Amino acid sequence: MASQYGNKLKVSLFGQSHSAAIGVVIDGLPAGLAVDLDELQRFLTRRAPGQGSHTTARREADVPEFLSGLVDGVTCGAPLAALIRNADVRSGDYDEIADIPRPSHADYTAQVKYQGFQDRAGGGHFSGRLTAPLCVAGGICLQLLRARGITVGAHIARIGSVEDRAYDPVAVSAEDFTRIAGHELPTLDEAASASMLAEIEAARVDNDSVGGVVECAVLGLPAGLGDPLFDGLDNRIARAIFGIPAVKGLEFGNGLVAAELRGSANNDAFYFDEAGAVRTRTNNSGGLNGGISNGMPLVLRVAFKPTPSIACEQESVNLRSGEPATLAIKGRHDPCIVPRAVPVVEAAAALALCDAFLEG
Amino acid sequence: MASQYGNKLKVSLFGQSHSAAIGVVIDGLPAGLAVDLDELQRFLTRRAPGQGSHTTARREADVPEFLSGLVDGVTCGAPLAALIRNADVRSGDYDEIADIPRPSHADYTAQVKYQGFQDRAGGGHFSGRLTAPLCVAGGICLQLLRARGITVGAHIARIGSVEDRAYDPVAVSAEDFTRIAGHELPTLDEAASASMLAEIEAARVDNDSVGGVVECAVLGLPAGLGDPLFDGLDNRIARAIFGIPAVKGLEFGNGLVAAELRGSANNDAFYFDEAGAVRTRTNNSGGLNGGISNGMPLVLRVAFKPTPSIACEQESVNLRSGEPATLAIKGRHDPCIVPRAVPVVEAAAALALCDAFLEG
Amino acid sequence: MASQYGNKLKVSLFGQSHSAAIGVVIDGLPAGLAVDLDELQRFLTRRAPGQGSHTTARREADVPEFLSGLVDGVTCGAPLAALIRNADVRSGDYDEIADIPRPSHADYTAQVKYQGFQDRAGGGHFSGRLTAPLCVAGGICLQLLRARGITVGAHIARIGSVEDRAYDPVAVSAEDFTRIAGHELPTLDEAASASMLAEIEAARVDNDSVGGVVECAVLGLPAGLGDPLFDGLDNRIARAIFGIPAVKGLEFGNGLVAAELRGSANNDAFYFDEAGAVRTRTNNSGGLNGGISNGMPLVLRVAFKPTPSIACEQESVNLRSGEPATLAIKGRHDPCIVPRAVPVVEAAAALALCDAFLEG
Amino acid sequence: MASQYGNKLKVSLFGQSHSAAIGVVIDGLPAGLAVDLDELQRFLTRRAPGQGSHTTARREADVPEFLSGLVDGVTCGAPLAALIRNADVRSGDYDEIADIPRPSHADYTAQVKYQGFQDRAGGGHFSGRLTAPLCVAGGICLQLLRARGITVGAHIARIGSVEDRAYDPVAVSAEDFTRIAGHELPTLDEAASASMLAEIEAARVDNDSVGGVVECAVLGLPAGLGDPLFDGLDNRIARAIFGIPAVKGLEFGNGLVAAELRGSANNDAFYFDEAGAVRTRTNNSGGLNGGISNGMPLVLRVAFKPTPSIACEQESVNLRSGEPATLAIKGRHDPCIVPRAVPVVEAAAALALCDAFLEG
Repeated sequence: MASQYGNKLKVSLFGQSHSAAIGVVIDGLPAGLAVDLDELQRFLTRRAPGQGSHTTARREADVPEFLSGLVDGVTCGAPLAALIRNADVRSGDYDEIADIPRPSHADYTAQVKYQGFQDRAGGGHFSGRLTAPLCVAGGICLQLLRARGITVGAHIARIGSVEDRAYDPVAVSAEDFTRIAGHELPTLDEAASASMLAEIEAARVDNDSVGGVVECAVLGLPAGLGDPLFDGLDNRIARAIFGIPAVKGLEFGNGLVAAELRGSANNDAFYFDEAGAVRTRTNNSGGLNGGISNGMPLVLRVAFKPTPSIACEQESVNLRSGEPATLAIKGRHDPCIVPRAVPVVEAAAALALCDAFLEG
Repeated sequence: MASQYGNKLKVSLFGQSHSAAIGVVIDGLPAGLAVDLDELQRFLTRRAPGQGSHTTARREADVPEFLSGLVDGVTCGAPLAALIRNADVRSGDYDEIADIPRPSHADYTAQVKYQGFQDRAGGGHFSGRLTAPLCVAGGICLQLLRARGITVGAHIARIGSVEDRAYDPVAVSAEDFTRIAGHELPTLDEAASASMLAEIEAARVDNDSVGGVVECAVLGLPAGLGDPLFDGLDNRIARAIFGIPAVKGLEFGNGLVAAELRGSANNDAFYFDEAGAVRTRTNNSGGLNGGISNGMPLVLRVAFKPTPSIACEQESVNLRSGEPATLAIKGRHDPCIVPRAVPVVEAAAALALCDAFLEG
Repeated sequence: MASQYGNKLKVSLFGQSHSAAIGVVIDGLPAGLAVDLDELQRFLTRRAPGQGSHTTARREADVPEFLSGLVDGVTCGAPLAALIRNADVRSGDYDEIADIPRPSHADYTAQVKYQGFQDRAGGGHFSGRLTAPLCVAGGICLQLLRARGITVGAHIARIGSVEDRAYDPVAVSAEDFTRIAGHELPTLDEAASASMLAEIEAARVDNDSVGGVVECAVLGLPAGLGDPLFDGLDNRIARAIFGIPAVKGLEFGNGLVAAELRGSANNDAFYFDEAGAVRTRTNNSGGLNGGISNGMPLVLRVAFKPTPSIACEQESVNLRSGEPATLAIKGRHDPCIVPRAVPVVEAAAALALCDAFLEG
Repeated sequence: MASQYGNKLKVSLFGQSHSAAIGVVIDGLPAGLAVDLDELQRFLTRRAPGQGSHTTARREADVPEFLSGLVDGVTCGAPLAALIRNADVRSGDYDEIADIPRPSHADYTAQVKYQGFQDRAGGGHFSGRLTAPLCVAGGICLQLLRARGITVGAHIARIGSVEDRAYDPVAVSAEDFTRIAGHELPTLDEAASASMLAEIEAARVDNDSVGGVVECAVLGLPAGLGDPLFDGLDNRIARAIFGIPAVKGLEFGNGLVAAELRGSANNDAFYFDEAGAVRTRTNNSGGLNGGISNGMPLVLRVAFKPTPSIACEQESVNLRSGEPATLAIKGRHDPCIVPRAVPVVEAAAALALCDAFLEG
């Protein structure tokens, strides 16, 4: 059930990088939700390739066709199915790597698991292209959440050695989201954006790639959402986030830093605000206690490794001949996937929250 | 379904800190597995409280009673159920905190979610005591894995400011596990152990607590285990690991560090070893590509916040009166839960791997 | 996941006929439900053995011990766990059948599936004793449903050749349930009860057994409960009902009879009653259209085969020697399990409805 | 999760009667299965409308387009997605029934559940058209099963008052399946077929419809497949079968007849056949003991009500005006859906068996 997510909202992704289409079936959306297809398209466009010097030259319009589940743009209670045709397919690019797995790609592990029957072209089902239907599902979830006063936003917190400033975990506001959502490199600090572009360009020139971190915040979550043990919001989000290719780390609140602190420094003191609502002075917990939202902003950070598809020569093996081999990846690849990963992190978080929300 | 884990191996935890018993039902274990109950008990003892200056004064023998699923110590295919009686219960300790939630505990979020019906005593179902039945399940999974040549080990990688050296991600061996498994503070570098004890003691003296990091490695995993997208070994492990109280971060391979690297530095080159097996020169991937094991050691790190139960005075609120309040937690609490978390991380990882293994 | 049931309300049964205990974990009950333990015990007593000439001589008090999930008799949101000790264990009774499977029992199929590791004593996990924890779960679900105005009742519709009259599918009332719930043989027509007792006694005298049918109705279900396709109330109930040993058939509404009718005779015409509520003139649909409740009584019938444990000599095989064999089952067995199955059918239906109800 | 089925093989159906397309995503098929698309099409054609006097005049080619999961006709391990365009859409036919629910249809229950947002045209997601993608999934499962020596067949056991003879539950053979698979009305007894056609024609002439029974058998099942309690083959098949519209009853083995028998008559005696295999003299159990296959043919019967769409005038209500109403359904409808249901029953059974088989 690898490609399905959710308890109450069941999302089923399908497709390979070069199959006829990729897509998604979403079962469990409440009836009566008006889906703003223009807004959804704008969200998908933030993820789509072909928008800047840092992205792959592969061009895909990424306009979903809705097959079912909507009547006049409103959910009807039946599963919503959408597909995106794979238009710009060049399988030939992958011929030479059929037997020589790309380092740190899933080529080798897929070969072992599927005994050679996997779709090799473009990474098959492991391709980052699967994040397009993930964003279709997540984009609809974002609309559902916003109708309930919950907003989700993310920015690039790091590219290589360049850091953006972090969200203020107590005072982060929706304005922090909207102000940068359309930017080529969405960062809170504009200077960071310029330095990051330079970092990416330097990697590109060297036929190399570079990693980064996306920070995501969720506002307006009511306290009491989530469950203990294995269905906490953190568990749910973790399961969704590690479904994004290239993710190697995940933190909530102050995350790894908490490990270096004492309780007196890490604990978030409770107080009543002027409106009588319970709030915390700090938000080292990232909005979660025991897996359940406490009414403060939910904050998480996701670490992405550099995309393993690089054009410089690498050591590998020829699985057919049993001989050592070298390869230099020729296809069209992003020197840095982090900018395009920003809406994907939002989508994955929205999926998890929506599922928890609908479970009640 | 908060307290259940697994697709094929279904683990169902139950109990509260001060209920009559805590326990676990495990459905899906193959018939014919001889469970070494002595070894399981030794494993549970590593987690049990009351063993050193750094642990709570609460004493629980933590000897499970097996109710079903075993015939003469061998699994019979029916669900295995085990319980642990809560012997040393002192609910009175928690009377005064009924209305004043402890900062960074689940007291407040549970109050909102369960509308006051939650079991308040000792954190109820959110208590770290639930890791005891988790370890019963995980301990059995460890035996099942070992029978298939897979071993799991962990050590304390950090307490507060003190770091242990990391596993060598390429050369980590089972000897690294067995050499330290019985230690009060299992570290690879003995000097680190002494410094960590000092760090914990300093926190204890200050009525404070301190956090840390556990690093875990899995050896002998065949390549090809795991699934794409949402059921990768990383997703599965993440869902289990975030089920452990106080976890705030999780990394695989070089984790957050990968975000700072270029692809040429981060990629793991493939080669054939003398036996003709495919291996990688480095192991920045932590043994996983596309969520599927590649035959190298699986390596993960888990960040624990300092336990929020501290005896120094803290700011909170009185939920009944609506007034500000202060509290100083009196009960029996570990100044550092990280040492006891080491086998819990092993257990959670074993659960996830066993489930993936049985799914095939 | 054989022994687990439910999407939102997860019920996990455990135990074997002669294990230390049998029991259940129920995850997903809402917090704040006051469980009337006396009423639950009365419900369990309706299923318990040892109450009449038609039941096994095995005596079990069947008083559950609650381990977790309740605080002062009220659900606290954590999983509810309960166990029933197996008091009257006589494994010796089963020694001689270890190698000779009892015809139409699960002895042989369990032997193949579990390769000889299954618990043979008393049918192990396949024993009808597992319906005791099923009734603990179902009994609590019945209380939860009743608090929402939904009542469930059942009667014996047939024993061998003797039929009771059926519920009036339009006018069946709660009074039909309460009037007979305590009876040794709950039938609508008292004369049927006497004839059934005679039928059972005749079978007992002949060292034989006899089958029967239980009819169940559910009142007060709001229209709109259930889901299309695979999660209709019929699908959900079917999955639960076929979890009861010895069930061989299940019908909703007029069931098999519908296959013989024309649409004009089978369709249920809609009308508004005096209160303006939508109702149907007839109820051949048994309260379900498209798997979703329509506000009319839900009616189902469950066919039980005669218990295969009979004392007269039968042909079988010796699996060890590979020779033909005969056996006469000696243990303590009901000549007719149908009377004790009445509350079990209610419990299974309640489980399914409760799960659908909590899913919303 | 209404429209999803399976534990290991996850089948997700989507579409409405008059949406752009209907389809299915199948997650969990093993890689390396060569799908014979011609054979699949022949199977789908058995279900397709427009083939005889007894079927609807709606014409749909029902040729699936495969979007993903196949590489050169062989499964690649990624989810298989297929869609069927809804070509012959006439929503206008349904305008007048928007407010007047058709008796014994899901119109009213869908209206309540989805608060008017449901897709009304042609019954929306509740339409029998959803059995087309179910047959795509089931047809592939049938091929997977056959590659393992398991064959599934079904015939019409009853239409209205006309009965076919039943399968011999001990001696039913694959030849019984192939001999009649292509027939307009697949019956074992050819005379029955003619009488059934007359029965259907008589109903059609009267603007009426008629119900029936489909009997299905599975050959070649190894003993030991299935699980106790809630995941027996019977539970699994039941959940799938009740997903077919119009099903009101389900029996295994001698089913309801067992309720009238004594154990001595109903029990199936074991013996060794000449090859030393364990078999039973009779097969009243229908191949299942304790939910697990015993190596004998699995036999089940499914009762279908007459299709509720009839052209004669019926009593209903106008939900908008709150007034009584009458309606005569005008669309294109089968006077008897049972002939087309034969492959659907095979498909549903295959789904359940395949899922159990892959779970191991």
